[in-house]
Amino acid sequence: MLDGMLKTCLKIISAENGLVMHAIKKTDPGFQDFGEVYFSTVVKDAIKAWKLHQRMTLNLIVPVGSVLVCFMDVREKSNTLNETCRIILSQEPYFRLMVPPGIWFGFKGVSDGLNLICNVADIPHKPNEVMRKDIDRINMDWSIE
Amino acid sequence: MLDGMLKTCLKIISAENGLVMHAIKKTDPGFQDFGEVYFSTVVKDAIKAWKLHQRMTLNLIVPVGSVLVCFMDVREKSNTLNETCRIILSQEPYFRLMVPPGIWFGFKGVSDGLNLICNVADIPHKPNEVMRKDIDRINMDWSIE
Repeated sequence: MLDGMLKTCLKIISAENGLVMHAIKKTDPGFQDFGEVYFSTVVKDAIKAWKLHQRMTLNLIVPVGSVLVCFMDVREKSNTLNETCRIILSQEPYFRLMVPPGIWFGFKGVSDGLNLICNVADIPHKPNEVMRKDIDRINMDWSIE
Repeated sequence: MLDGMLKTCLKIISAENGLVMHAIKKTDPGFQDFGEVYFSTVVKDAIKAWKLHQRMTLNLIVPVGSVLVCFMDVREKSNTLNETCRIILSQEPYFRLMVPPGIWFGFKGVSDGLNLICNVADIPHKPNEVMRKDIDRINMDWSIE
């Protein structure tokens, strides 16, 4: 984990005829503000990388499938400056990952079927706060063992 | 549609290696407040009914599968008092359905695979604002043609 990232365990409740899967409440630790919810999908073995949000805090949840998320810290005042980190999000374990702004990140699809990422962001999407880099511009181990 | 319900078309954007599916922004028409995001699943042909939220406004999105949602209006001051309504949510068409408090509702799974409902609610879940009724207490056509 990089400085300021927060992993929060979430409940999956077996209810009558289906599940209820928690994602985020405004009273949860680490919740900042609400801006937008959107979904992304990533097909198995495909990589979407790299992006950096200059202002947006992400709250990532994977309710379907599993996704490898890789990070690279370039925040000058961070305790983990220049460190990288790899985290697999899925339903087992099922958790939410809060990612502060200023960190490069990318996704890789892990499961055969649908891999669905839900992002609950503190500000609505604005193209001019997003930076992008080609995948080969950051050294990363994208392998899934 | 019942009085006060709002249907908002949403975009699905084909991006590199996957999709981006909009859900809700705080600047969207009809957005009230943010309380909680959670997911529910409902297996094909299973029915989850009935519930009524006394205070919660729902924003329903179905990013995976398709779900029949049935409604019955019991709000005394509503223009559609005692009316019912049936709406299928899916990705084609892909839209968000805002449901004000005071309406009985239930879900039925339509697709063979996963049927995933995302609810972006204006208040966090509180058990004491939810009312429940057995399925046979409200007459409804649950058939899927």
